[in-house]
Amino acid sequence: MAELSNETRAELIDVAHALADAAREATLVHFRSLALTAESKESQRFDPVTVADRLSEDRMRAILAQRRPQDGILGEERGSQAGTTGLTWVLDPIDGTRSYLAGTPTWGVLISVADETGPIYGIIDQPYIGERFEGGFGRAQMQGPHWQRALATRGPRALADCLIMSTFPEVGTADEAAAFHRLARQCRLTRYGTDCYAYALLAAGHIDLVVEAGLQAYDVQAPIAVITAAGGVVTDWQGQPAPQGGRILAASCPDVHAAALAVLNG
Amino acid sequence: MAELSNETRAELIDVAHALADAAREATLVHFRSLALTAESKESQRFDPVTVADRLSEDRMRAILAQRRPQDGILGEERGSQAGTTGLTWVLDPIDGTRSYLAGTPTWGVLISVADETGPIYGIIDQPYIGERFEGGFGRAQMQGPHWQRALATRGPRALADCLIMSTFPEVGTADEAAAFHRLARQCRLTRYGTDCYAYALLAAGHIDLVVEAGLQAYDVQAPIAVITAAGGVVTDWQGQPAPQGGRILAASCPDVHAAALAVLNG
Repeated sequence: MAELSNETRAELIDVAHALADAAREATLVHFRSLALTAESKESQRFDPVTVADRLSEDRMRAILAQRRPQDGILGEERGSQAGTTGLTWVLDPIDGTRSYLAGTPTWGVLISVADETGPIYGIIDQPYIGERFEGGFGRAQMQGPHWQRALATRGPRALADCLIMSTFPEVGTADEAAAFHRLARQCRLTRYGTDCYAYALLAAGHIDLVVEAGLQAYDVQAPIAVITAAGGVVTDWQGQPAPQGGRILAASCPDVHAAALAVLNG
Repeated sequence: MAELSNETRAELIDVAHALADAAREATLVHFRSLALTAESKESQRFDPVTVADRLSEDRMRAILAQRRPQDGILGEERGSQAGTTGLTWVLDPIDGTRSYLAGTPTWGVLISVADETGPIYGIIDQPYIGERFEGGFGRAQMQGPHWQRALATRGPRALADCLIMSTFPEVGTADEAAAFHRLARQCRLTRYGTDCYAYALLAAGHIDLVVEAGLQAYDVQAPIAVITAAGGVVTDWQGQPAPQGGRILAASCPDVHAAALAVLNG
């Protein structure tokens, strides 16, 4: 597709923030509600889909219907809708529903816009804390309760000095867990339980690696846009682009990425 | 010791909030600073002690020297100081230094005051989010960025419906880890990485169980005060009071506590 005009880019950024504002309001209606109920989407795995998840996505889709009706949409809760512009909005109304359910403030709303090459702009929003991380179209910045800052990933360092995160110690399959723990044992510090917030911390220069498996497109596209804009590298475990999700290796810089990739496949 | 007067209780609450305010300011000076350096307190285990940790405790001690000079102090960083009133302030200037280092907002400042029976009032403060949970002297409440609420733990439910948290999947020794995972497998959902924030979530009624090992007095006394005031139960893994730390079982209610205790010792 043709290069986007500055006007179109500004419009997409403005719409993305409007979506994030709407999702922030929708998710906070139910966060830490003592009446929160969770349904189970799959019988095998605990994956609550809350009323808030659907409300958040529906509010975002209503805005897109009004402001960007020709764009496509891929949302976690309401599926795909084709567009005609070559642009697709990829929405995860609550990434980290288990955190949301438990009251931990490390879930987030993921919003991104993709062209045929993958995500070109994204937002990771944490509504309860009031933090928004965005990247793409020449932007890489965060706004939080205490400061607004440029986002820039950490520089190269030995794996022995790296901080690594993943959402669960089980990671995925037994082979995926083995590869992850082979890498984590070489790192300085491993933390779990952070969901999409780990990607925001990577983009902001606080940690070095996030390694996960079994992700969906809507889980990774906003993180890819934000981290790439901040100077980091996000691929699959073969070093290939991973806009469709699966196994994800996100690193602060090319050196750390290469070192981690070697251990994952070692 | 004699029952504390209402005036003394009000004074202790006021001083505790002054300590929390000072620690909030001190810890935020360095949180997510890109220049943050961490020393290692022990050679065996990664346990960073940051400049912020000491600054936070020193600021609190300065306030106590002025306002409660006769009380004792037990602080993580600067050790013990005997008092003459029968009251001891127990301070953890940053609980969760690994989270602090990684930028995750689930560390906290723990402040409590104890008499010879154990903690009688406590605060769990999360400076970055701007949340304060307090309990004791007839109070059980939280103040956060979006609301002020009474704290009340969850009611009884089957272990299969319980949410359980611990800071690390390794928990402690191999036996401690085995006992924890025996319990966690019976629960609905397990989350890691939350440090003292897990105790705040328990007090606020969002989760059912927190199980940890290897804790110190300054790690547990504020959580004990807050959770007890909110209706929960905190003991060691034998069901005995645990103001000195060690193995901790914190539960939403006596029924869940009893069920968890049986599995830990099963």
